Amino acid sequence: MKALEDKILEKGVVLNDGVLKVGSFLNQQIDTAFISEMGKEIANIYDGDGVNKILTIEASGIAIAFAAGVELGCPVVFAKKSKTINLSGDMYTSSVHSFTHNETNTVMVPCEFLSETDRVVIIDDFLAKGEALKGLIEIVEKSGAKLIGCTCAIEKGFQKGGDELRAQGYRIESLAIIDKMDSSGITFRCN
Amino acid sequence: MKALEDKILEKGVVLNDGVLKVGSFLNQQIDTAFISEMGKEIANIYDGDGVNKILTIEASGIAIAFAAGVELGCPVVFAKKSKTINLSGDMYTSSVHSFTHNETNTVMVPCEFLSETDRVVIIDDFLAKGEALKGLIEIVEKSGAKLIGCTCAIEKGFQKGGDELRAQGYRIESLAIIDKMDSSGITFRCN
Repeated sequence: MKALEDKILEKGVVLNDGVLKVGSFLNQQIDTAFISEMGKEIANIYDGDGVNKILTIEASGIAIAFAAGVELGCPVVFAKKSKTINLSGDMYTSSVHSFTHNETNTVMVPCEFLSETDRVVIIDDFLAKGEALKGLIEIVEKSGAKLIGCTCAIEKGFQKGGDELRAQGYRIESLAIIDKMDSSGITFRCN
Repeated sequence: MKALEDKILEKGVVLNDGVLKVGSFLNQQIDTAFISEMGKEIANIYDGDGVNKILTIEASGIAIAFAAGVELGCPVVFAKKSKTINLSGDMYTSSVHSFTHNETNTVMVPCEFLSETDRVVIIDDFLAKGEALKGLIEIVEKSGAKLIGCTCAIEKGFQKGGDELRAQGYRIESLAIIDKMDSSGITFRCN
């Protein structure tokens, strides 16, 4: 998505070799008009695929997933990272390590919200080593739902998570893929 | 909002005197079309107030805040509950106790995303004892921004947080206010 690459170049800040700060438009502060455009782009990718549910993970994936859900006309389910007293009943769970937070969480989705009849797209903000995506894929597979594809806004191609999943046969359609990133600049993968 | 009251009656589950489960449309699973309607309703409430920023708190407030931001044509900032390595720089912070999780979090917003020129509406999914709202109000006041009002989707009127804040002079405009709730039914406050 050219507009996203331009936005990353304009607003993104490379903190070190591994961290790209896009808090001014993608997370923490959300540029609603721009995220809505990303939702339309995601709906175009999966046009005709019969998607009836989007799965994401709290918290930064929610806005993008919501924008895509509006365009695709389907609900969004988000996986939670901790059990609260108003989450009851059976859960699909998986274990996800976050390198950003340096911790491993159990992520969970109530069984009632994913089933064999669902055709699911997984959406998240970042794809780096693919830990979150692998956890969400595991949850979709446990539920018996059909996984149509996975779209992350920004894939850090140099961290290989996306390519590993593609090699396993998953459809990974990131909106922007960064192959190189350091203080001298950002290089995107050509489509 | 009559449609929200109807939805609560149709889909909500009262777990005990204090907990209302609306996970099937408002949190965990998000009914995107319905939440978009809530966004329009919120935009109507603040029509003409010159709102240029929405503040919410992760995670369940984000979808509603995003939908309202789309309609009001302004960005959404969400307060985070834990410090991560890609959050750097100065922060406005406050302390928020969650009765749902039975824990106290420091919530924080980077100073760069709230300033004296902002006219802010705070949005969240639930208003019970008002702890989250008080924390977000404190953050807005620390930033010097103008607080226009606060809108929660569902206010548990019987837990008094909303009325306490109204008594202090804050504009609290909930979309649905529940004055009584138990296994025999739900009673909404008349407008």
